Amino acid sequence: MLHFNSDYMETAHPAILRRFAEIASEQFSGYGLDRCSASAAEKIAALCGKPDAVVKFLCGGTQTNAVVIDALLRGYEGVIAAESGHIATHEAGAIEGRGHKVLTLPENEGRLNAEQIRAYMESFLRDENRDHVVQPKMVYISNPTESGTIYKKAELAEIRRVCDAYGLYLYVDGARLGYGLTAAGNDVTLKDLASFCDVFYIGGTKVGAMCGEAVVIPDPALLPRFFTHIKRSGALLAKGWVLGAQFDTLFTDDLYFKIARHANEMAALLKEGFREKGFRFYIDSPTNQQFLIVSAAERERFDEITTYGYWCPYDEDHTVIRFAASWATREEDVKELLRLI
Amino acid sequence: MLHFNSDYMETAHPAILRRFAEIASEQFSGYGLDRCSASAAEKIAALCGKPDAVVKFLCGGTQTNAVVIDALLRGYEGVIAAESGHIATHEAGAIEGRGHKVLTLPENEGRLNAEQIRAYMESFLRDENRDHVVQPKMVYISNPTESGTIYKKAELAEIRRVCDAYGLYLYVDGARLGYGLTAAGNDVTLKDLASFCDVFYIGGTKVGAMCGEAVVIPDPALLPRFFTHIKRSGALLAKGWVLGAQFDTLFTDDLYFKIARHANEMAALLKEGFREKGFRFYIDSPTNQQFLIVSAAERERFDEITTYGYWCPYDEDHTVIRFAASWATREEDVKELLRLI
Amino acid sequence: MLHFNSDYMETAHPAILRRFAEIASEQFSGYGLDRCSASAAEKIAALCGKPDAVVKFLCGGTQTNAVVIDALLRGYEGVIAAESGHIATHEAGAIEGRGHKVLTLPENEGRLNAEQIRAYMESFLRDENRDHVVQPKMVYISNPTESGTIYKKAELAEIRRVCDAYGLYLYVDGARLGYGLTAAGNDVTLKDLASFCDVFYIGGTKVGAMCGEAVVIPDPALLPRFFTHIKRSGALLAKGWVLGAQFDTLFTDDLYFKIARHANEMAALLKEGFREKGFRFYIDSPTNQQFLIVSAAERERFDEITTYGYWCPYDEDHTVIRFAASWATREEDVKELLRLI
Amino acid sequence: MLHFNSDYMETAHPAILRRFAEIASEQFSGYGLDRCSASAAEKIAALCGKPDAVVKFLCGGTQTNAVVIDALLRGYEGVIAAESGHIATHEAGAIEGRGHKVLTLPENEGRLNAEQIRAYMESFLRDENRDHVVQPKMVYISNPTESGTIYKKAELAEIRRVCDAYGLYLYVDGARLGYGLTAAGNDVTLKDLASFCDVFYIGGTKVGAMCGEAVVIPDPALLPRFFTHIKRSGALLAKGWVLGAQFDTLFTDDLYFKIARHANEMAALLKEGFREKGFRFYIDSPTNQQFLIVSAAERERFDEITTYGYWCPYDEDHTVIRFAASWATREEDVKELLRLI
Repeated sequence: MLHFNSDYMETAHPAILRRFAEIASEQFSGYGLDRCSASAAEKIAALCGKPDAVVKFLCGGTQTNAVVIDALLRGYEGVIAAESGHIATHEAGAIEGRGHKVLTLPENEGRLNAEQIRAYMESFLRDENRDHVVQPKMVYISNPTESGTIYKKAELAEIRRVCDAYGLYLYVDGARLGYGLTAAGNDVTLKDLASFCDVFYIGGTKVGAMCGEAVVIPDPALLPRFFTHIKRSGALLAKGWVLGAQFDTLFTDDLYFKIARHANEMAALLKEGFREKGFRFYIDSPTNQQFLIVSAAERERFDEITTYGYWCPYDEDHTVIRFAASWATREEDVKELLRLI
Repeated sequence: MLHFNSDYMETAHPAILRRFAEIASEQFSGYGLDRCSASAAEKIAALCGKPDAVVKFLCGGTQTNAVVIDALLRGYEGVIAAESGHIATHEAGAIEGRGHKVLTLPENEGRLNAEQIRAYMESFLRDENRDHVVQPKMVYISNPTESGTIYKKAELAEIRRVCDAYGLYLYVDGARLGYGLTAAGNDVTLKDLASFCDVFYIGGTKVGAMCGEAVVIPDPALLPRFFTHIKRSGALLAKGWVLGAQFDTLFTDDLYFKIARHANEMAALLKEGFREKGFRFYIDSPTNQQFLIVSAAERERFDEITTYGYWCPYDEDHTVIRFAASWATREEDVKELLRLI
Repeated sequence: MLHFNSDYMETAHPAILRRFAEIASEQFSGYGLDRCSASAAEKIAALCGKPDAVVKFLCGGTQTNAVVIDALLRGYEGVIAAESGHIATHEAGAIEGRGHKVLTLPENEGRLNAEQIRAYMESFLRDENRDHVVQPKMVYISNPTESGTIYKKAELAEIRRVCDAYGLYLYVDGARLGYGLTAAGNDVTLKDLASFCDVFYIGGTKVGAMCGEAVVIPDPALLPRFFTHIKRSGALLAKGWVLGAQFDTLFTDDLYFKIARHANEMAALLKEGFREKGFRFYIDSPTNQQFLIVSAAERERFDEITTYGYWCPYDEDHTVIRFAASWATREEDVKELLRLI
Repeated sequence: MLHFNSDYMETAHPAILRRFAEIASEQFSGYGLDRCSASAAEKIAALCGKPDAVVKFLCGGTQTNAVVIDALLRGYEGVIAAESGHIATHEAGAIEGRGHKVLTLPENEGRLNAEQIRAYMESFLRDENRDHVVQPKMVYISNPTESGTIYKKAELAEIRRVCDAYGLYLYVDGARLGYGLTAAGNDVTLKDLASFCDVFYIGGTKVGAMCGEAVVIPDPALLPRFFTHIKRSGALLAKGWVLGAQFDTLFTDDLYFKIARHANEMAALLKEGFREKGFRFYIDSPTNQQFLIVSAAERERFDEITTYGYWCPYDEDHTVIRFAASWATREEDVKELLRLI
């Protein structure tokens, strides 16, 4: 059986497991106040061009979204997201669970655009009942999006301008950020993100780490008691260096980007192969996830030879399924999959 | 200046103010444990054909929605509502503020229908990721709807059947219930509501009371610690009899329905008059609220002679505005308004 | 049967019922944006010596405490209160229900003192684990306290100094403020409260109003979106002028203080009478509530002739009970009670 | 420099790191639906004598407490804990952050006893205002306690009887459970815990794991949607097998208990040595943590040779400090420490 169902099927990239072995006999301070976390934070802040940035390590994507959004918003403030945004769909109400409404806009292949946000805010400001509704205060986007598509630098710059015009925070969910930053056609850098965002996170769990997401807060004055907020949220790992050491490893010798680039290349091979075989794509993704529209018969055929991710129903007769590549995806397995179908 | 902007512009129906005067020198127990509240609850329970029903009095609509929904749902459960539902729009996030997601469906002139709910639940049950999303557990509808339209008995019965099939609570927001139950074409009774709903409320604030909504819980075992829940929600009025006495008055000699019928008649006159003058209606409402599509010039003309409610933008050049009638609306004022335009 | 069980047993002071009758045929804007509320707010702000103060009217004490505390604190911040404070005991967890911990200190006849707060903060700052605990950010006191005792101006000034030293908000719960400001020995004024507090409220429900508490925010920049916060909290009354008109009446011709003074005088008569008859007092209260320690036999005797409030157990054989006076308490009833026992 | 400051200073027990290496090239399903988690759950359920028990793996102690307590309690219900309980002190308000009040009782060397709880419940039931207060619904204890002391089986049985009598859940925080179950004088087993508790957890983070706590729910019907609740709480680890594999390792060949026993033995050596040198103990702990009362001079001396944990102030001149042993503590280091002081 081949495995293409997700990019988090293996425990961790070998370099990370090696790192754990190397530090196995060392002692560390708890709660992220350790030298691994400090080193990782310094490397990330430097890459972001913001040496004073606060960088904190959390355990997972939903947790990070909930913790960051709750840290920034007051109760009566809401967060604008695409209808397909992770916070609007697959977090079991984690944002509402902390008291905040997710205000959804239609998606454009997973993306929001500046014009939509501007139109939404103009409509809000024209609404004579606006004091009776949730106050929009943040824009949430993910890059790559849920659909594997990416934002161009100019798009992000324009969204930032709209955020500035209407007093909105910009928060980027980077659960798969590496795949976006190394995608064909990408022109966005960590420096760009640090310049455009109030907060963003660099996903580790889905890019080779065992677990972990690096939250970047470019302005160190933005969230003065973030440590205590994390603790109260049940998101403070006792052995924080376990996260720090992973990111320190991922940001040594460009490993994070190498992992992502490899996965993107494997996904491109898959895409090319699927296209040649006449499959229909749900969306044109330049990153490590590829979405196919398949009939029941095709799905059964796939079931015999590989795992894949269920995505969503397409129509009465078809389903959308996802193939994901990771650091662990081998070219021979891609070829074998393509050969078998 | 004439006044048609809402049905809650006057302090209270004269019979209520008289009642306050009558009881002015009496002493009562606090927190709703008084004889007025008991009498009102008994009358309402009897009208509902559920003598054992729990009836509790709260202060306002948003408060009631938030308190009831939070009492029934666990954190990971959500409430299905029309996109135009009050809880989805004009409560400033009160439902999310207590941790619950509002799951919206498209509206049909303010209404949901059973088929939509069934389709939503079927789609939810087919979703292989359904354990990662908010669990739908309640249907929220309002009768009349936000748009002044009403549900037929058969529609409610069908919604109840769908709720039973999928394990959903049915909760009816009756902020303007009186206007619905006395509308032309209505075939729903309080008994029907008590038989179909897990919880519903009979709105007082917008039907002649100074303040107050009567929450009806037909099954007394449903919410065993509702009193303490109300207290914790900041919704327990110290002088609870102030609410009880109002509902006791409203449900003496059919006052509640007389108030509503009068307002509906006045609104029908308005509707007829507007129609004759060629105005376009946003929606065909049989209740006390009428919604017109007006140009900027028309709006200016109205501004000179009457107050009205702003509803929403319609298109570049038009706005939807609302005219509401109440117990206090006089036929001569309706005629004067129609004469002036 | 005589009635001394609480100061909220009658519907409202006659002047308030008269006011309702006077405005019965007028129309008002909803949600507190009306001329009665504006007038009441202006009068209160003027009395406070803070013409720019924001004054908002809510419905009850627990609601007000929960709304104000939640408006001021972030999630990880807590509020310091006496162990006997209303928010720590009799609000069914309303403060925790909005996410905030109540940090309790021992009481001194219901009071906190500056030295306790300073010691608490010093201990907090010395705690090397302080980033792992709730951050104290507000002091909550009530005046009069739960036990009917009052603060002296010098005590409040000293508490304010401690709050300034440690970056704490000071919030005063004035559910029975009138009785405190007119008590024998009181030297505190509304101006003092407005100068010492970040927020305080002037209680109406227990001082002659039908319902209503006036929240005073001396610095208008403190809570910029308080209206929307109130709405989200389910605490925005549609017919806001019902609250405004009551406070406008209470602050016309000193009615608020006259009501309070009368009740204090009646309570003083009671106190004198009880003392002469040899009853033991639980606490020496200069305000409208008097607390007696009674045996089961004494309680039974009282049960035959009057209502009173249950307060708490005292010891195996004794209970503390409360006698409260209000605007409606008649001197002949006080004398009759004293005669009968 | 020697290291005795905590039992979570090393990354993980070598057997766990070996296990990670062994499974490094395998693929797993996400979210805890994997064979490692299934195997670990089965082993733990068997040891508990409850083959049908639900066993779920979370990441840390505060997270586990918050998730479990929020899963079991309704908003108006509170949890009884010792004043020194972790949820009452060092979780930055995580319990209140999910809406629940912690109701504290005085501790007895970290313990609660059945009599206290019974007295509290009797007092609650006698309180005529009990509908206005938080409803006690759960008892939280930790074993070992925050102070390193343990419960005897008879004490737990008695607490269970009181819980049954008053309708309370019993939840045991086992962050350091291993050290308790292997302590000198212990007579409690996992089977006992599974028989007495509604929920308890077996701590991993502080007993050799990299991270992870195993929540045991003996009655599988107790929390039917626990998975979704975990997700909503931001506590669902994508690579759930990382937790499962650790517990599968810890519960193979008794490793969990071997780790704990070794640490207890090292702590006993320390205790013996400290006693011989005349140190005063803050508490008589039979587990892996030892608490000394030291002067400033003594603390300075310790600072030169070892790390230790700050615990709390003792008096003007003394501080309580903690020495903790773990699987990684070597006998020669204990002896060296004792030699140096």
